[in-house]
Parts: sequence; structure tokens; C-alpha cells
Amino acid sequence: MQISERVNKMSEPALYKYYPEVHKREAEGKKFYYLNIGQPDIETPKEFMDKVREVRQKVLAYSDPEGQTELRREALKYYKQFGLHYNEDEILITSGGSEALLFVFLTLCNPGDQIITPEPFYSVYKEIAKATSVDLVGIPTKAETQFSLPELAEIESLVTDKTRAILITNPNNPTGKVFTKEEIELVKDLCIKDNLFFIADEVYREFIYDGSEFVSPAHYPEIGENTIIVDSISKRYSACGARIGFIITKNKQVINAIKKLCQMRLAVSSVDQQGATELFKLDTSFFDKSIKEYEHRRDLIYEKLKDRDDIIAKKPTGAFYYMVKLPVIEADKFIEYLIKDFENNGESVIFTPANDFYLDPENGKDEVRLAYVLNEDDLSRAMELLLEGLDKYKKEHPENIKEEYKN
Amino acid sequence: MQISERVNKMSEPALYKYYPEVHKREAEGKKFYYLNIGQPDIETPKEFMDKVREVRQKVLAYSDPEGQTELRREALKYYKQFGLHYNEDEILITSGGSEALLFVFLTLCNPGDQIITPEPFYSVYKEIAKATSVDLVGIPTKAETQFSLPELAEIESLVTDKTRAILITNPNNPTGKVFTKEEIELVKDLCIKDNLFFIADEVYREFIYDGSEFVSPAHYPEIGENTIIVDSISKRYSACGARIGFIITKNKQVINAIKKLCQMRLAVSSVDQQGATELFKLDTSFFDKSIKEYEHRRDLIYEKLKDRDDIIAKKPTGAFYYMVKLPVIEADKFIEYLIKDFENNGESVIFTPANDFYLDPENGKDEVRLAYVLNEDDLSRAMELLLEGLDKYKKEHPENIKEEYKN
Repeated sequence: MQISERVNKMSEPALYKYYPEVHKREAEGKKFYYLNIGQPDIETPKEFMDKVREVRQKVLAYSDPEGQTELRREALKYYKQFGLHYNEDEILITSGGSEALLFVFLTLCNPGDQIITPEPFYSVYKEIAKATSVDLVGIPTKAETQFSLPELAEIESLVTDKTRAILITNPNNPTGKVFTKEEIELVKDLCIKDNLFFIADEVYREFIYDGSEFVSPAHYPEIGENTIIVDSISKRYSACGARIGFIITKNKQVINAIKKLCQMRLAVSSVDQQGATELFKLDTSFFDKSIKEYEHRRDLIYEKLKDRDDIIAKKPTGAFYYMVKLPVIEADKFIEYLIKDFENNGESVIFTPANDFYLDPENGKDEVRLAYVLNEDDLSRAMELLLEGLDKYKKEHPENIKEEYKN
Repeated sequence: MQISERVNKMSEPALYKYYPEVHKREAEGKKFYYLNIGQPDIETPKEFMDKVREVRQKVLAYSDPEGQTELRREALKYYKQFGLHYNEDEILITSGGSEALLFVFLTLCNPGDQIITPEPFYSVYKEIAKATSVDLVGIPTKAETQFSLPELAEIESLVTDKTRAILITNPNNPTGKVFTKEEIELVKDLCIKDNLFFIADEVYREFIYDGSEFVSPAHYPEIGENTIIVDSISKRYSACGARIGFIITKNKQVINAIKKLCQMRLAVSSVDQQGATELFKLDTSFFDKSIKEYEHRRDLIYEKLKDRDDIIAKKPTGAFYYMVKLPVIEADKFIEYLIKDFENNGESVIFTPANDFYLDPENGKDEVRLAYVLNEDDLSRAMELLLEGLDKYKKEHPENIKEEYKN
């Protein structure tokens, strides 16, 4: 009796790793500010539940495996506003963006095939890759250069005859990086040249700051057949609890293959689909407020960190994540310190150690991801706690501080 | 650019195969009675939507990846009434029974490993096996012997060093077979002897007729560590559109492995989970009416078929499916005839060709599955159409009639 190798190789996301200890301290009265999880605090538009409350089916029957027609139509109308022009037979509804990714990995890759993606990346990619026996290959990017893509030659050198796709998360989780037109075109041209799929995970599409430009491979007709867009309502509408995602592509072979996978799991939640339909009817001005709010929060973190000589924290322009390089050798130990040994007025803070976002957990050990999903006051307090905690930690644990930053 | 072999090998379930043609005829005014899909017509208990309408979360956040505590607690209380005694850390919530099966296949098997299951079987098993590169191995069962299991020696001869589990659907889809105590114990003893997992798919648990006994491997403590129960609310509460399933096992290694898969897809629909919680609070007397109704429908089919010398249709005792062996060589062609070339008063009927439920589609070509999910009047009319259609077909298409049944 043993567990399969593929699942054995999967790891528990660091997201949950600290919870038993944190919950224990909370039970003792300690308060934690959570900067660790990408669960937006912005309210879900009331249109979702208003619609759900109206559902009057006598029999809650299976939806079409490909998703409800009305939701697909409304989503398509919405996408047009971002220059993504697709037809009704080019979009499938999935149970969240995670199922969309699972289906795309299964469809493009046989066991042992490769998908290339900028590293650090969304940690769930690693788990889906292991579950589907796909080899994920990282394109190295760095905090010092704002997680920009390296030269074409470096990316090209990663392509082998096992490579099936390049996956770009834009805007990026965990880095907050918004890929430029030049970067998207570089990947696009490489995909065309080497006949690879361009998977664009655009679940943070709307969260772009400082007037940066959103560029999608879907803007380039010449790569239409090779482009697969993965999407989700979770972040956009603060509706993570509704499991609604999308796969969009002009490639009929891919659509037909994924339809089989859709039929394998029969349907997506009928109630969630009906609620989601209303969200896509909202005017995009709906985002103005939340984008402004997130931009403001990002600025707040930037202001708190910019004068620190021991922290690298270049300003990101998208999503709601901030990758921060600390003077510590192992961020994991620093986080444990914040949970167990630090407090100010009974309060502390948690965030995610970034090595979870790297293929080799030996990488990114000095980085952490902050999700700015707290209101201004709480975020401000959380940042104070982080910095005060760090200063105390540097004194108390010099063994875990990089040589150049020791006091 | 090509689709992976694993998805290429998947087939489109026959469930959907006829729809384009059927919908075309419907647009022309023809009426079809649908006996092809296991979508119950019984009303979903209003408690589901009553609860959903009460949901008042400001932010529709991710649920716990393992499922909401309240739903797990209510489900466990419910299971106890069927002699299934499990604790809170032994149950995980999935997005429908299909995700439960996907996770179990991934967890128990490496690519190339085997799962044994009585054949014919639920066609989705075949698709999940292909998607996960698992080899499904059939235990042959036959209409003539009411789809009972063969002798131990025959089952035992199928076990190899690649075999990881035996999967029993009880009551069975597509056969309606309820496995006896002796059969469950035979499989149980074999699993213990050869150290295999016993996967029990019990989504039709409540639908047992004629006072037949429900026996689960969960009733036998000696196989506790090897038993995995797969469940779903879809059929039980006519709630297929809510995607809520379960994996239940005392095996901590399996639970921990599946927790990783749960984290990979983040969460199950929050609204569906809240609705489902109320369903489990219903008294089991709720089923009395629907069980009586299904039993009555099964009897109706039996009465219509019992005097036909050219049809083998032994009375099933569970679920809401009836497997029927016809005098035709290829049921598929007969169904096409019913769609295109037959009508009585502008009406016809469709059902599922059974070869979809066999590993080799050359098997079961003369069998069909009838899902009795229509009310008495409609079902009676559907059966009349089936028989009249068959009699006309025998005259018009003798080339597709078995030698011994030619008029």
C-alpha cells in the first residue's frame, strides 16, 4: 500500500504550512495580520448573490459540460473590451482557473513533456505539473531587475524537443510584474518559430497600475492557433469561493480535446455559473475603485520599504503581490520567529516564503511575497510589524542574517 | 502542434453523441423521450436553495481546500445511519464524485498501474483512467446472470503486480445491480489477501429496491485501511448541478495525499457546500417517496419487457438504470434509426448504447441502458415507442437483427 509517486512528489503549499502554529497562538489571544494569501478583501459585487437568490430551478440539473451559454456569451462580450476577440465555440468554462490549468497541462503534454514559465511562478503550477507528470522548466528572473524576462537566447536555450508550451502569468503572481509589449512579442515570436503553445494566464488582467499597458498574445492574429488563454473570476470580482474559470482558444483541436475533459467531470456548479454571468455584465468602471485601492496599497508598501538599505523591493505594476528580498538567509525561519517569538502589543504578521514559488526550494530563500489584501490601516500596521520584527530578528539571530547586512 | 496521447485516447461519451441529430429533429417538431442520461427528474429538496438564498458573506472567499467543516460534520452524521462510521479527519469534499474519482486514481496509481472493476461500468471511469494513464481492467459480468460477479478464481486471475485497487460501484451504474454481502466479502477478502485498495463508489447507496441489503466495505473493520468510499450528492438529492462529492477513508496516507490534490485546486464551490449541508440534515424518510417512485418505474419497464422472447432484461434492484439486451446486432444503429427514421404520432425515444460501458466497444453492442428518470406516463409512452420501434426495425432492417430473432 503506497501512494503514487506523482502525488508523493507534490508538496503542501507553504500557504497552509504555518496555520497550525498561527491558530494555536491566535487561540492564546495573539493577533496576526495576514499578508500570505491572495484572497482579496474587496467585497464581491452584490449582483452575484442577487442573481443566485433568484435561481428557481425545480431540479438543479447538470449544466452543459462546456458551460452555460449565457455565461460564455457575457464573458466573450467582456473580453472584447480588452481586445480579446473570440467566438462562442472558442470558450469553455471550468471549475476555477486551477481546473483550466489542469486541463491545459493534460491536453498539451504527455508524461515527461515540458512547459516553460518565468520563475518564480504561482506555486500551484508546480503541483499541477507533478499531478500530470509534466516537467516545469523555469526562465530565471530576478528581484534586482524587477523580474523582467532575460534575453531571447537564454529563453531559447531552454527549449527542447519535449517542450510543448511557454506559460506566462500576466500580470504575474507572485512578482506583480506586468510583462511589456516587447516581452510578450519575444515569447510570441519564439512560440511561432518553435511551434509551441503560448499559454497566457490572465486572471489578474484588470489589476495594472501606473497606466502600464496590458498585452496579450490574443492581440496577435499570427499566433491565434497557438494561443490559449486561462482566466478566472476569482480575483477580478473577489469571488474566489465561486469556482468559475475559462479556457479560451481559436485552436479547434485543443477545444475538442478539452471538451472531452469537461465531459469527464460532467459539469461546473450551476448556481456559480448563474451568479458569474451577472458579474461580467458589470461595467469595467467597476474596477476603477479597486484598482485605485490596490495601487494605493502598493504605494504604501513601497514607501515603507524604499529607504531600507537591507531590502530589495522594486515597485511592481500589477496584481496585488509584492516580492521582497530580505537581508535574512532563510525567510522561512524569520516567519517562524514572527509567529512564535515576536509580538508588539500582542500583534504580529505573516506572509509567504518565496522559495515555494521556485522549482528548487533552495532558491528564493531570502525572498517573501506580500499579498496586499488588507485595508490601508491594517496594511500599514502589518508593515510596521514586519520591519520592527526584522530589526529585532537581526539583533537576536545574526546567524540567519547575510554577512553584508549584519549590524 | 498535437494533442497529448492521453487525451487523444479519450472518447466522447455516447451520452452526447446523438444530440446534434436529436436537436435538429426537435427543431423540426419531433418529440423525444430521454432515457439516456442519469439526470433525475425528482425535485431537488427546497432546503438547498433556501439555504443558498440566506448566504450573506460580503466576500465570497475560498473555502478550506478540504471542504467546509459543517458540511463534513453533517455528512458524517448521515453516513452513520448506513453503518459508515468515520471521523472528521477522514473525509474530504470534492467537486462532485468525478473529482473524487480523479483524485483517487491519481493518488493510488502511477502511470501504467491498474484498477480492476466489474464490466460494464460507468463510462466516465474509462475517461478518468485515460486522463490519468491508469489501465482499467474489467471483471466480466453478463445480462444473463444479472451482472453478478464471477467466481473468485476468475477475479483473482486479473490481479497483477500492477494492480492497485478493485473499484465496485454499488448499486451499479449502468446495470442497476446491487452487490450481495457474499460478493462484497469476496472482493474484500481478495483486497486484504493481495493488499489492494477497495474503492467503493456509493453514489446510488440509497436507491435499493425489494428490501435488498446495502453492504459496504466500510462495514468491515479488518479492511478499514484499504477502504476508500467515493460519494456524491448528485443522484441522492437530485442535485447534479451542485458539484459536491466526497472521499472518505481511514487511511491517513491517502487522506494526506488527497489533501495535496485538494490544495492544488484550492477549493470547492462555497455556495454549493452551504446548500449541500442542509440536504444532509434531511431525515432519511425523505428518500422513501423517491425510492418508491423509482421502484415503481423499474417495475413498469419490467412489465413491458418480461414477455418478450427477443429481449433479456432481468429485474435490477438498485440505482435507476435498466440494462437491456436487444435482438439487434448493433444497438447504435437501432438508436440512429429511432432518431432519424421512426416516429409514432411525431414522437420517438433515445437511450444509451451499452458498448460505451465496456472497455472494448465491440462488447455490449447489443445492449442498451435505460435511465428511468421520467414520470410514469412518459416512461410508459417511451417504452411503447421503444417496442414499436424495435418491431418496425426488425422488419425494415433484418441485416442488423441476430439470426435467431429474425422474423
